[in-house]
Amino acid sequence: MKKAIVLLSGGIDSATTLFYARKKKFKCFCLSFDYGQKHKREIESARKIARGAGSPILVIKVDIPKWASALTSPAKLISHTKKERIGKRIPSTYVPARNIIFLSFALSWAEARKCSHIFMGANVVDYSGYPDCRPVFLKAFQKMARLGTKSGLQAKAVKIKAPLLFKSKAQIIKLAQQLGVPLKLTWSCYRGGKVPCNKCESCILRAGGFREAGLIDPALKPKK
Amino acid sequence: MKKAIVLLSGGIDSATTLFYARKKKFKCFCLSFDYGQKHKREIESARKIARGAGSPILVIKVDIPKWASALTSPAKLISHTKKERIGKRIPSTYVPARNIIFLSFALSWAEARKCSHIFMGANVVDYSGYPDCRPVFLKAFQKMARLGTKSGLQAKAVKIKAPLLFKSKAQIIKLAQQLGVPLKLTWSCYRGGKVPCNKCESCILRAGGFREAGLIDPALKPKK
Repeated sequence: MKKAIVLLSGGIDSATTLFYARKKKFKCFCLSFDYGQKHKREIESARKIARGAGSPILVIKVDIPKWASALTSPAKLISHTKKERIGKRIPSTYVPARNIIFLSFALSWAEARKCSHIFMGANVVDYSGYPDCRPVFLKAFQKMARLGTKSGLQAKAVKIKAPLLFKSKAQIIKLAQQLGVPLKLTWSCYRGGKVPCNKCESCILRAGGFREAGLIDPALKPKK
Repeated sequence: MKKAIVLLSGGIDSATTLFYARKKKFKCFCLSFDYGQKHKREIESARKIARGAGSPILVIKVDIPKWASALTSPAKLISHTKKERIGKRIPSTYVPARNIIFLSFALSWAEARKCSHIFMGANVVDYSGYPDCRPVFLKAFQKMARLGTKSGLQAKAVKIKAPLLFKSKAQIIKLAQQLGVPLKLTWSCYRGGKVPCNKCESCILRAGGFREAGLIDPALKPKK
């Protein structure tokens, strides 16, 4: 059986990626990260989603400079965002080298577990403007990974796949529905309160995606 | 003042790199890693060396798959090594994606602290055969780092420097002496016992370097 490491944050994109990899017959091992994010509750979502998919999950604590991002610094507010501004510049929620660190860990675990693939949910259509989500970055990471690992030198380089890279949020949500992703369990809001704020860039992208897909966000439905 | 992150393991190469960067007028912040290595005592060496250099040091704990390397797995012995075999193949002490993870953290901290450079002690002359010490890997990492970070997009990419890359161990030891590196404090032995084993690849490379440099290893001198 093919094996893969899946980067699972607990949001829609990574959950859909996990179910996509499963559909492609990969045995998946999920990695999630506690990097001091304000929306730490996404990790709980990730655990539930992995459990539902029957995949083991490892949560790795990583020590990054918290003051450098609105996503991690108590001193920096996560601002209200207008839809038309999203993706136009690198936002204050940028975390230095975050995906580089995540992918590096994924690479280490992939080699140790003899996984041929790493899956991640990066996408560039409805995205926030992070440099480490772009195709050109992923391609460069792939090359570096090939040159810097034992598996790469042995012509068995771990392949990095981002199957949602060129899909819009609406397309991802539709795909999630087809794949049976428990969207109700996913968490997107950067503020990490009890309910989504509906004002941060992540909430706005999510809401726009459901609207465009003509669906109601099940996470917003009142509990009965 | 120019600022740099220095990867400091506590061995001769990284200690020399720290003193080299200081000589080049960089204000240095050291990063050291606890990844479950058997020779965890190298971290204590790193702390003492950083203190001696007047540089702050942060020790980051990283969760990597311990079973995958003789350097971290209690089930795998660190073998005796013959000098002529060193560097001919990837040894059992290879840790999956180790330098990739270390450099990724360095990148994150460099961006947050507005450091223009990262210094590391990689070298390829008297080395153990690790893929993540090779010039071609470092070049690929540099490119990936430029494409995946905010500083890179803003044409202020963090520069990765490995000033010892093409030096022999003997040359490094001579340079260390010139720079006033406290070689007595450095630790190389992979087995991490009370005294160096003199049999692992790291001990053998170190001993060969001192021999070739015509110097006595101060770490081996009996304490008075």
